[in-house]
Formats: sequence, C-alpha cells, structure tokens
Amino acid sequence: MPKEPTARIEFPDEDVTTKDVRQRRFVVRRGTREIPGLLWTPADASGPRPLVLICHGAGNTKREQYIVSLARRLVRHQGFAAAAIDGPVHGDRRADGSKDGATMFIEFAQLWAEDPQMTDEMVADWRATLDALEELDEVGREAVGWWGLSMGTILGIPVVAAEKRIVAAVLGLMGTRAPREDYRKRIIADAKQITCPVLFLMQWDDELMRRDDVLELFGEIASSDKRFHANPGGHVEVPGEEIEATERLFARHLLHGG
Amino acid sequence: MPKEPTARIEFPDEDVTTKDVRQRRFVVRRGTREIPGLLWTPADASGPRPLVLICHGAGNTKREQYIVSLARRLVRHQGFAAAAIDGPVHGDRRADGSKDGATMFIEFAQLWAEDPQMTDEMVADWRATLDALEELDEVGREAVGWWGLSMGTILGIPVVAAEKRIVAAVLGLMGTRAPREDYRKRIIADAKQITCPVLFLMQWDDELMRRDDVLELFGEIASSDKRFHANPGGHVEVPGEEIEATERLFARHLLHGG
Repeated sequence: MPKEPTARIEFPDEDVTTKDVRQRRFVVRRGTREIPGLLWTPADASGPRPLVLICHGAGNTKREQYIVSLARRLVRHQGFAAAAIDGPVHGDRRADGSKDGATMFIEFAQLWAEDPQMTDEMVADWRATLDALEELDEVGREAVGWWGLSMGTILGIPVVAAEKRIVAAVLGLMGTRAPREDYRKRIIADAKQITCPVLFLMQWDDELMRRDDVLELFGEIASSDKRFHANPGGHVEVPGEEIEATERLFARHLLHGG
Repeated sequence: MPKEPTARIEFPDEDVTTKDVRQRRFVVRRGTREIPGLLWTPADASGPRPLVLICHGAGNTKREQYIVSLARRLVRHQGFAAAAIDGPVHGDRRADGSKDGATMFIEFAQLWAEDPQMTDEMVADWRATLDALEELDEVGREAVGWWGLSMGTILGIPVVAAEKRIVAAVLGLMGTRAPREDYRKRIIADAKQITCPVLFLMQWDDELMRRDDVLELFGEIASSDKRFHANPGGHVEVPGEEIEATERLFARHLLHGG
C-alpha cells in the first residue's frame, strides 16, 4: 500500500498580528481533504516551542471567542504556539457557509451517529495537522498539549489515545454515552490508552450529560496523574478559573518536557 | 433554663512572632470544657479582619505542619486571622500527653461510634471559639471561612450547617458513610443546610473512602456555588495546588463580604 503523502500546509490569506500575537489561517491537505485551521504564535517567533492543539465544541468553530482567547493567552503568557481546526460540518468545512450554531450542533450529532468513519477521519486530520505544524521553524518538535471539551473530548479521547506526542490534556463535558454501543466501547477502550496527565472538567448541572456517565469516563482514563474539577452551572458555563488551571497544567507539563 | 455564660478566652503562655506572623496559644472555657487552640494574626494587627477556622484531621493536631502552613499563608498573603482548635481526644485535650497519630485516630473513631453527643459538643466548642475570637480587636466581626478535610469535614458539615457567620468552606476527604445510620442521616441533613460557596476535595485513590460515598456527600450539599476537585493519590496526598485554590476561594468570598 503506498504511504500516504506528507501533509502539506498552506497559509492562503489571513495573517494578522494583534498585541504581539500572530494569527494565521492555514489549510492542511490530506488526500482529498482540506483541513481549515488557525495558528497562533508570538509575533517574532523563531525556533521550536510547545504547541497546544485546541478543539472547539459542537456548534462552535475555530474562531469562537473562548478558543481565540485561550490560544492568545497561551502565546502571550507562555510563549507557546496554539492551533485550532474546524470540526466536521463546522466552520470553513461547510459548503453553505452557515455559521448557525444549532445547525452545526445537530448536523454533528447526526454525522456522529451515521458515519462510522467520522472519528478516524478526524483523528487523521489532527495528526496530519500536527505533522505539518511541526515542520514550521516557529513550532518545531517540542511537547504538545490537547485542549478540548464536549465535542473536543469526543474527538480528543481518540486523538490523545493515538498520539503519543501529546503529553498533557484538558478534557471534559463528556461522558461514556454515545449514539451506538460500539462507539461507547471505543470511547472506553481509547480512554484506557490515555496515560498522560489529564485535567478533566465537568459542569455539575450539565443539561447535556449524565453525571454517572461523566464520572465513568473520567474513571476509565488510565493516567495516574488525572484531576477532576466539577463546577456549578450548565454545559457552557465553565468558569474562567479553569482557563487558569489549564494554563498552569500546560506550563507544568509542556515546559519541562512532559 | 439559664443562658450559657459567654465563652472566655485566655492566652496563657505561648506568643511567638515569626516572619510577621504572630502565633498564640489560647484556651476558651465553655462550661467545664477547656478548648485548646492556636490563633494566627499579622504581627501588628489591629482592627477587624476575615477569619478562617481550620480543623485538622483525625490523628493530627492543631500544630500539624499543614495546618500551621495554611494559617501562616492566609495571614501573610491576605492579612486574615486564622484559628485552629484540637479535635476530641487530640492534642492538648489528652490527659496522657500522647502525640501518637494512630492512637488519636483510633480513639476518635471509637468516640464517634460510641458518643452520640460528640458532634454537638464539638459544634458548640467551635461556636464558642468563634464567639470568643470575635471579641478580640484584631479579629472582630468580619467574614468567616471554614477549612477542614476528613475529620475536619465530619465536624465541618455540622458546624458550617449551624453557623451562618461562615460564608465559604473547604471540605472533603469524606463521604456519607458513618458508624451509625442515624449519624449518616444527620450528615446528609446537615449537608442540605449548607448554602455558602464550597470547594470540596477528593483523593481519587483514597484508601479510606468509597468514591460513591464521597460523591453522594458532595451532591447533598445545597450550595449553588460548589466546586469539586478530585486529585490523584491516597487520603493524605492532597496536592499543594489545592492550598492555592483554598486561598483563592477565601480571597474571593471573605474579602468581598461573602
């Protein structure tokens, strides 16, 4: 079987620097797929630095305010690079250009239920993106972190399980419930493969997740260093202090070689 | 029925200032009981300030390193006062002067099982201590916090439930399991009376507590603002970052009037 060609990255247009953070739109090509993303680096970056991969939730895109804000914070405070790509049926992947959160949310739920290849394709998209980013002088091959809640954990569990370059992860707002029993089994099997330090977030009053399912998923993660934070409020009400906890986790594990 | 006489506080001997933190041993008299404690204040304190009540775990005393360290930190960083008293059969309450942790732990477990008045007497001891401390010029009547894990939660749940002067609490390392069914019911009933902001700590690999019992106790606390942090390791391995989280919680809720 021929080896899949190396992922190629292009920066077709947007390149904006605001308050010392450079934001560039990129497209990574993997076979016939185009993977749309954003890369944040210090304005004057050269040489390798830790990289945090940020996966948005269903109904959001790579440009969501909390994604951009987290990325800029990691660049400004820690000198890291950060990258986000659009999820399936989200953002620049949509032919119809719709930015409607409810539409993207529902279409993702349907795609997850109907397309058994979705997860593996998204894992491959993330890995190809990481391959491509590591070729850049201003990113290079340093420690890598993962940050993804809700859909960012549906996709994050298999990515972190597969990708040993990831040495610390923030996950959460997700449980073991899945639209099919074989998917549920895979989530658990993947969680058992995760051994890096994990901060797992839960919203105690989450209207989308059952508490027992969330705790079960946390329990299945194999990492000896795993922390669980439950906060008051609903699914989208994660408090700002967890962004600070995120930054401390990545500072601890990405700066010191994992 | 005659009113119980006002609690009286005495500072019989120890009064040491180290790096701007003044530590004094005190005794509060409540009826025939003598309540031995330590008070920490800024060296030059005058006028009212927030106060944190710190309750040690079974087998420890008010002089345990983590108790003294937390108290000194709250004084140094926040300008608060902090106070700790010995638990039943612990520290200066012991006629035999024993400092053996295992002995105190076992005797506390036995006392809890055998003496139905133990909890109410300790609640009254803490309330009398708070009454007495509030009379001091350098403490006064400001917001009050509670910090107690393990036995500090066995006693802390009823104290925080009863004492509306407490406006924020750190609890944990405890579940709903108790030596008698009526005690278990009381723990749950008291938890349902707690409405102040709570940070609840759990050790994921706690050898003394069942996970389901710990989560049940957290679930029963009535506070709308309650946070749950689970960390890796056993009962006595709470990581230092939770001391930082403690300080942030008290700074948020005690400095701004709760």
